[in-house]
Parts: sequence; structure tokens; C-alpha cells
Amino acid sequence: MSDRKKVSLLFIGTELTNGTVQDAHTRYISPRLGEIGLDVRSVQLLPDDRSISRELKREAALSDIVIVAGGLGPTSDDLTREIVADAADCALLFNQRLWESITERFEHLSGTANRNQAFVPEGFEPIPNKRGTAPGLTGSIGDALLFILPGPPRELQGMFDEDVLPLLRRNYGFHKEDMLEASCFLICESGLEEACQRIPSQGLSWGTRVQSRRISLYIRGGNKESRSAFLFSLQKHFGKERVRQGNIDLPSYVFGLLREKKKRLSCAESFTGGLFGKTITDFPGSSEVFSGGVISYTAGTKEKFLGIDRSLLDSSGAVSRETAVAMALSVRKISAADFGISFTGIAGPGGGTEKTPVGTVWIGLSSLEGGEYAFPFSISGSRERIRSKAVLIGFLLLEMSIKENKSLDSKRMWQYSKVFL
Amino acid sequence: MSDRKKVSLLFIGTELTNGTVQDAHTRYISPRLGEIGLDVRSVQLLPDDRSISRELKREAALSDIVIVAGGLGPTSDDLTREIVADAADCALLFNQRLWESITERFEHLSGTANRNQAFVPEGFEPIPNKRGTAPGLTGSIGDALLFILPGPPRELQGMFDEDVLPLLRRNYGFHKEDMLEASCFLICESGLEEACQRIPSQGLSWGTRVQSRRISLYIRGGNKESRSAFLFSLQKHFGKERVRQGNIDLPSYVFGLLREKKKRLSCAESFTGGLFGKTITDFPGSSEVFSGGVISYTAGTKEKFLGIDRSLLDSSGAVSRETAVAMALSVRKISAADFGISFTGIAGPGGGTEKTPVGTVWIGLSSLEGGEYAFPFSISGSRERIRSKAVLIGFLLLEMSIKENKSLDSKRMWQYSKVFL
Repeated sequence: MSDRKKVSLLFIGTELTNGTVQDAHTRYISPRLGEIGLDVRSVQLLPDDRSISRELKREAALSDIVIVAGGLGPTSDDLTREIVADAADCALLFNQRLWESITERFEHLSGTANRNQAFVPEGFEPIPNKRGTAPGLTGSIGDALLFILPGPPRELQGMFDEDVLPLLRRNYGFHKEDMLEASCFLICESGLEEACQRIPSQGLSWGTRVQSRRISLYIRGGNKESRSAFLFSLQKHFGKERVRQGNIDLPSYVFGLLREKKKRLSCAESFTGGLFGKTITDFPGSSEVFSGGVISYTAGTKEKFLGIDRSLLDSSGAVSRETAVAMALSVRKISAADFGISFTGIAGPGGGTEKTPVGTVWIGLSSLEGGEYAFPFSISGSRERIRSKAVLIGFLLLEMSIKENKSLDSKRMWQYSKVFL
Repeated sequence: MSDRKKVSLLFIGTELTNGTVQDAHTRYISPRLGEIGLDVRSVQLLPDDRSISRELKREAALSDIVIVAGGLGPTSDDLTREIVADAADCALLFNQRLWESITERFEHLSGTANRNQAFVPEGFEPIPNKRGTAPGLTGSIGDALLFILPGPPRELQGMFDEDVLPLLRRNYGFHKEDMLEASCFLICESGLEEACQRIPSQGLSWGTRVQSRRISLYIRGGNKESRSAFLFSLQKHFGKERVRQGNIDLPSYVFGLLREKKKRLSCAESFTGGLFGKTITDFPGSSEVFSGGVISYTAGTKEKFLGIDRSLLDSSGAVSRETAVAMALSVRKISAADFGISFTGIAGPGGGTEKTPVGTVWIGLSSLEGGEYAFPFSISGSRERIRSKAVLIGFLLLEMSIKENKSLDSKRMWQYSKVFL
């Protein structure tokens, strides 16, 4: 699309410019605009002062769409309504119907400063706020279409998803049906981009969004078949486990699988130190599937809590196939779970040797029906990265084990152990 | 200070405007400017295109200081040098000495695209980059002082701290000696602000910066005595444990204490599910002080790994003083550590009862020399918040236990259990 519309984002709040609060709106709004084919021309953070009016007029002149957030509260700091009226050069009018709809929902507010929130610039329309008192606003300044949204993320996100995005998609954007979304695991951004570039594009365009545990990939344009062919090429390159159609968070997906199959899990963590347990217990209801386990950070705790022979640790080493298998088996048995997973490795920065350098990781699995296995991986990067990647790989192994309920294809894992970063 | 200088921040990169990468520069730079008394007028994120020149000229006209980051790489996307020359209306000159200093450090670069990085706008000075190839730049456009910094956070932060901030502090800002920094734990932002507002200010000003595990408080102006008196008032209100002079991260501080005293720690985690272990093993070298422990998420794992009697769990309940004490004692003994800490509670959103509502938390401590104790807390908020606050309180209790090496003052902890949020 050559005629892509330009969007300006304008977020208001001194807490944003002084760094007290990190701007979370851009990360929420921009990728969603990108998904429907709209480009962000500029993001601006401004303190709560009168300079906003000048900036708003300017953005309205430079862009097709301006999205403003913040400053809609009831106090005197909250200048946005006045400033919009000023920039649009129109009067600010009390909207009786709007005020009634606010006080209907929040009875205690009648007669308070919240009355300010029922003023609307002439020619603008209020957008109902289902999650708070401050209504949003929409209207025009010159040729630019404006959306004014409340600053609290929950209110902003709800209003953006329910009111703003559908309207923009209808009038300017791609339809959801013209896009294919994929979730990519354990692939670095540049590796994914390179792979995408090598695929003949046939009129397709693609964009990525790096999330905490995956990269989301949006394939747009073409037809359904060409988008699927693009995805298939990527799956062939990276493996189906790492590139999946849809919007998927791997740990959450595996948690759902365990719940669905009514299976219980326990873990034995060495260098991950509790990170796997923390990740699965982040999910409400985790006690349905997770029994707990052991943080066997030292030889002593491996021995005392898991009953692993000191002689095994001495002969094979703490970071080895044998130890990983013994940890997984033991933790599963002791906690009477269906699956046991174990992590042993060197997170660094210290502790590496020539034989076992920093980043060496063994992940073990024990399943009631499928026996024991362990796979080695070599992960590069910081301590934090090595730990978080290892936990994510753990979820991938667990998924395979749960689904297949038989011996994992060790050839396939060996192949992964090289491509994983 | 009425004549506070205005700063504009301009960050360049399409990955910022399309939301792929979250802007981390504002959160780094703005509070540090605030500490020395400089206000941020505007933060703008722009894609890599020619619009930057127009925006740069405008910011230079509106502000005293403009800090630009990004677009200094060697590729054709990296337009910042050209754009600065364009906005400053001057030539872009090859700087032979700069090029030599780059190739001296990165020999393999000579004759590559990196040669672009040795071009400097006429009248500008390069700022050496100790962490990468792209030098920074400083100079003027009109009356505005400009700093152009590389985009990678490690390079930007190093150059900002070592070159930009000292210069700004010297010329425009407060001196470090005119400021008192405090670290506040387990206090919410609004509670801290309210308390600060109630203290007679005597010409002092203060600012806060919310960090992941604390709020940093900066008290400026007045003299040393008045700043100390302000801090003392806060300590009287919140307790010395929660308001401390200096820049302190509590878990890191406790980790240092354990290392210094050569003491070992183990943990038994129920509802925190590994978060305490994860937090202490985030620190490199944690194996010197941390033995590991147990994620005793169920009655079964409490029984099997820690030997806690089912009858105790039945009679006292899993979330109780008795269970917390038994968990801490048992994990310390089995892992032969000096200290054992335990967490049992209801993280929610489900699982609460009238007697033990969501947010009820018991934290137990066992010390080789000081015996066993447990304290109850009532923490409000989301599952994530309840878990993270509980872990932070755990570190506070641990610190008291390590330092005093005797029975904790239970009266004091009872008092805290009410003020903690």
C-alpha cells in the first residue's frame, strides 16, 4: 500500500516526561496500528502544560490521524479538553446527556469536580468509557481525525480496542482476514528477518513485534494461499514447533495442555534457581497442575532433597545428561507427578570451564509413561538471557512430551540444540 | 529554581515508533536530568526518515538543550549525522583523527561502511565511544546545546553518565552535594508523596523515581541539615528500614550482607513458587550464599521434601504461623544453611476464604543462632503484586535477622504488617 495513512501519537503527563512512569501506550497502540497497515509518524510525550495546544495543532497539520492520551481526569491539571477546544478553535460545551450517563453509573460523583468531564468541544463526539469516569472524545482538526483517550492503560486499551481500532480498520486499514499472524519462539529477530527476506514475497508484506517470550509475525497482502505458503516456508526453515500460526504464549499454552489433560508437573531447578517455577506459578490456578519441586542449586541440595548420589555428580558432573535425568526422575517420583522437568547448566558470567563453557545447559524430562530423556543446549548471551531461554526451551520439550506421550524424537532435539541461540 | 533549563529528547528509530522496541532512554535519561534540576519539555520518537531534520530544528528553537539518540550506525538507514549537519546548516566533514582512533580499536573496520562514522558536522566535536564504534557528537544549533548519542542502551548510558551528565551538572545543574538521595521500600508512590507534602519544606524540593523494587527520592535545595531533617521526618513516619539514605536495591544489599558474613541461605516457597529463588539467583555469584531449597506448592511436596506432618497442615492450615515456621526450620536444616526463609500465602485471584482472604501471607525465618519466627502480612493488589511484595518483605526480614542475629522485634513487625500494602 503506497497510500498508507500517517498517525501521530501524543501522550500527556509530566510523569511520562520526567521518567517516573514508562510510556506503555506506544507499545500497545503502534503494533496494532501496524497490523492494519497504518504507520506512526511520530510519538510525542509532553508534560501537563499549555504547550500541548501548539503541539496538537502541529500534529493535526502533519498527520491524517492523531491519537491523544492523558489529561482527561477531573482535576485542574487535566487540561486536555480545554486544549483540544483551543486547538480546534471551538467552544467547550457542557453535555447534559453525557453528564447524566456518568452520574447514572457513578452516583456519588454528582456535584463534584467530575462535572468537568462532561464538557465536550463543539463538533466533537464523546466516546463512552466502560472502565472509568472520563469519556473519550473524537472529532476533527482541519483534515485530521482526532481520538482523545483516557490515560490509565486499562481504560485506554479497552477504548482503543473496542472503539478506535474497529473504526480505523473499517475506514483505512487492512481487514483481519487479509492478515496471517504467527508466533515465533526461540528465534532471534535478525534471524527471523533474514529468513523472511529470503522467501519470494509475491506481493506480501510482513512486520514483526518482539514480545517478552516470542516474536509475533504479521503477514499481510496477497491471498490466503500465498500467506500460508510464506508461513510454510518459515516452518520448513525453523521447524513447526518454533513457528506457529496464531497468537500463542508458549508457557501459557503448555499450562493449558496440562490442565486439559489433568496432568501434574514438578521441577528440579539448578542454575534457573526458581525461574521455571516462578513462570508456571504466574498463572492463576497453577496449583491444579503444578506440585512444586526443588531448587537444587548445590551438590548438597541435589543429594539431600533429590537423593542423587554424590558419586554420580562426581563422575558425570553436575551439568551432564546423567544428572539432568536423575534430577527429573527423582523430582517426579518424590512429588508423585506425571511429569518431572530438570534444568542444570552454567548461567555465568563465572563458573565456565573449557569442557563446560558458560551457556551449556542440560534439560531433563521424566514422564510417567514415556521414561527419561535429557537434551543439551548451548545458549549465548547474558546470565538473564541464558536462564530465560532455557526455561522457554523447557516448556517446548514439555509440550512435546505431553503431546506425544512417548519417547521424544532425539534426532530432532539434537538439531534444535544447534539452532537455538 | 525558577530559571530551570528546558531539555528536549529526540529518539530516532522506526523500531521505536512501530512499537517493536520500547523506548528505554526516557526512563534512563529523564530522572537523571531531574536529579540535577533540568526539566524535560518534550520527548519525541521518530522513524528513520528525513522528517528528523525539521523536528530537530524545531526542538533546538524551543529548548535550551537537545539530546538526540539513534541513527549513528554505519548503514544507509543511519541518517543522523547528515541530518544534524542539515539542521545546523553546516558541512559534514571527514575527521581523519577520529577515523584513526576508531580503526585503532576496531582494526577489521578499515575500508568499510564504518568510515561514515568518522564524519562530523562542521563546528561539532566528537564524543569518544568506549563501548562501540559510533562516536557521539556535541555542538550547537542557534542557542541550543546539542548532544547526539548512539542508540544501543549500553553505549548511550555510558556516554550519558560519563560525558553528558557531568557537563550539564557543571554548567546548569545542581551539584551532587546539594542533593540527598534516599531509597524507599514497600511504600506506595501516593503514600510517599502525601508524607512528603506534610513535612514543612523550608525551601526544599523533592522528586521521586519509581524503580522496580523501590522508589528513589531526591531531596534538593536548602542546606545539608534541612535535607537531613526532611529525611529524618520520613524515617520517623515509615521506619528506618523502609526509608534509607543512598541508592540501595534491597535484594542486592542483602545478597552482599550474606556474602560479607559468609552465611548460607535456603528457601521454602509455597505461593511465591520460585520467585524468591529466582530473585537471589539473578545475582552472579549467588552460589556462594544460596544453597537452594524447595518449591513446596502443595501439601504433598511440603510433606515429602520438607517432612512436614500432614497433621500440622490439617490442624493449623497451610497458611499459618506454624506451617511457615516448620517450612523455614526444615529447609534450613536439610540444606545445612545458616538461614532458612519460607513463604506461604494466598496469591489469588482464587483460593481465598473468609478466614484467610487473598493477600494473606506468612513469612517464616529460621536462623542457626536466633531460632524461628514467623510474621503475618496482608498485601493487596494483583497476584503479581502480592507475590513480588512478599518476596521484598522477605528480604527485609532476612536483613534484620542477619544483622541482629537475635530474636526479631516482633512488635515492630506487627506494626509493619499493618502498614505494608
